[in-house]
Amino acid sequence: MSFTERLQAAVRRTHNPSVLGLDPMPDYVPDYVSAESDPARRILAFNKMLIDCTHDLIAAVKPQLAYYEALGCDGFDAFLETIRYAAGKGLIVIVDGKRNDIGSTAARYAHAYLEGGFAPFCDALTVNPYLGSDGMTPFLEAAHANGKGLFALVRTSNPSAGDLQDLILQDKRPVYEAVADLVTGWGKPFVGADGYAPLGAVVGATWPKQADALRRRLPHAFILVPGYGAQGGTADDAARLFDEKGGGAVVNASRSLMLAYRKAKASTADQFVTATRAAVSAMRDDLNAALAKAGKVDS
Amino acid sequence: MSFTERLQAAVRRTHNPSVLGLDPMPDYVPDYVSAESDPARRILAFNKMLIDCTHDLIAAVKPQLAYYEALGCDGFDAFLETIRYAAGKGLIVIVDGKRNDIGSTAARYAHAYLEGGFAPFCDALTVNPYLGSDGMTPFLEAAHANGKGLFALVRTSNPSAGDLQDLILQDKRPVYEAVADLVTGWGKPFVGADGYAPLGAVVGATWPKQADALRRRLPHAFILVPGYGAQGGTADDAARLFDEKGGGAVVNASRSLMLAYRKAKASTADQFVTATRAAVSAMRDDLNAALAKAGKVDS
Repeated sequence: MSFTERLQAAVRRTHNPSVLGLDPMPDYVPDYVSAESDPARRILAFNKMLIDCTHDLIAAVKPQLAYYEALGCDGFDAFLETIRYAAGKGLIVIVDGKRNDIGSTAARYAHAYLEGGFAPFCDALTVNPYLGSDGMTPFLEAAHANGKGLFALVRTSNPSAGDLQDLILQDKRPVYEAVADLVTGWGKPFVGADGYAPLGAVVGATWPKQADALRRRLPHAFILVPGYGAQGGTADDAARLFDEKGGGAVVNASRSLMLAYRKAKASTADQFVTATRAAVSAMRDDLNAALAKAGKVDS
Repeated sequence: MSFTERLQAAVRRTHNPSVLGLDPMPDYVPDYVSAESDPARRILAFNKMLIDCTHDLIAAVKPQLAYYEALGCDGFDAFLETIRYAAGKGLIVIVDGKRNDIGSTAARYAHAYLEGGFAPFCDALTVNPYLGSDGMTPFLEAAHANGKGLFALVRTSNPSAGDLQDLILQDKRPVYEAVADLVTGWGKPFVGADGYAPLGAVVGATWPKQADALRRRLPHAFILVPGYGAQGGTADDAARLFDEKGGGAVVNASRSLMLAYRKAKASTADQFVTATRAAVSAMRDDLNAALAKAGKVDS
């Protein structure tokens, strides 16, 4: 099965198009989850706790590499143990690294996450399209050959996304639409039986006015949607980025799920589990209700 | 001293505006440099050999993270040992990672390379500007506070750079010029006594027609020039990206220096040293001659 088929099947099985972002800070970790003073061990214990209490409810996790790199080599050890643990629980692992470089170097990043290095526990990688096709080809070839996936930045969720992405071209397209068209062209030769290419797109939930047009411009792209929750995107905003059958997209939340225990004032591990599961279930129900409202339901 | 002052001083001291790219592949390493079978140990031994035989001739090294990430956690250990070793020899270390993300996550990458984690042995980091100002601010603030540097991708050296970077805006600027203008604006509040901001730019030597205009559009940006050597850029092409006094830029070469031993058919460590030093000296002389020819010499 291709990456997109596996991801869609996992979403159907759990009835949950959410992705749990694993962007841990050492000070996020309550003492009842880890009494370690070593920051890398603290975040690993936190991740395992989050995975333990959500793996039956969700399809995928998305560790953000920056949060591990910030802790140096120990952080990478914690990253490896995290993805090994998540994959062992049957979760799909989307590594968020926004990697990018010229072709010969992109091939080494592709090796790291899609072929060798971390690849046994990594299903997909986010990439940045600024370098154009020859920076994308090694990623695409590695993803296609190994049943892995990619998500290229198209429209990011942050407030200043438009500094570059909203500039208007002579042909009237904003830059982000031109990037969407590039992504569609790059993925086309690799479209699988499910209609999706291994090259998906990142489109933030925080730009609802641009969502419908982007969904149409990205017919073969599974969309990874950041920006829900802590960043302000709503379920209705995110629902615009799904296909007509309510597939073809997953929605990430990191802080709003990782820190649900704080909002609930959880002071024991049991309360942590309850609060986290409740937040994951609420996000799932919120997204499914928005998809039903939008008429995006598999019939 | 600011990062750009330190870098310029090192270039003046060595009379060499070259940067040695450390992008090692395990199969680059001749057996007389390392008999290890472990790929991470092989590349570390190779890097140390390269540093040992060039550190008196050059100002800076540029390890490319992808080549280390490709080897997983062991690769990161080799990366850390490489930059520790290079910094110990007095070399300036420019980490090439092209990192990028939304603000909260960019802050973690900034921590990794400019504040904590790998920062003790890292002087500068390359970044990708696709996310706009709020993805750049944490990098800039960390660089400014810690005397570190940044180089943002403006015009990359690869053949398909133009897929996105050459698209023409309504106001007639190509995207790469618009990015140059953003970089100039972002760096301006941080310009130091030497006239340079901690935010520099990456502009490939492979696009000589665009070089003069880009140098003018980037008045406060120290320019990191890839694409010389194996990628086809010449010293005359690179010279266009220096300022009028022959400063404000450094030129990277990776494969043409790392693999000089192969071209020279070196079969002993002594021959490796001779071949590598000759290649580094030849590049230095080539660049200095081109700068003199262009009239870009400090008077």
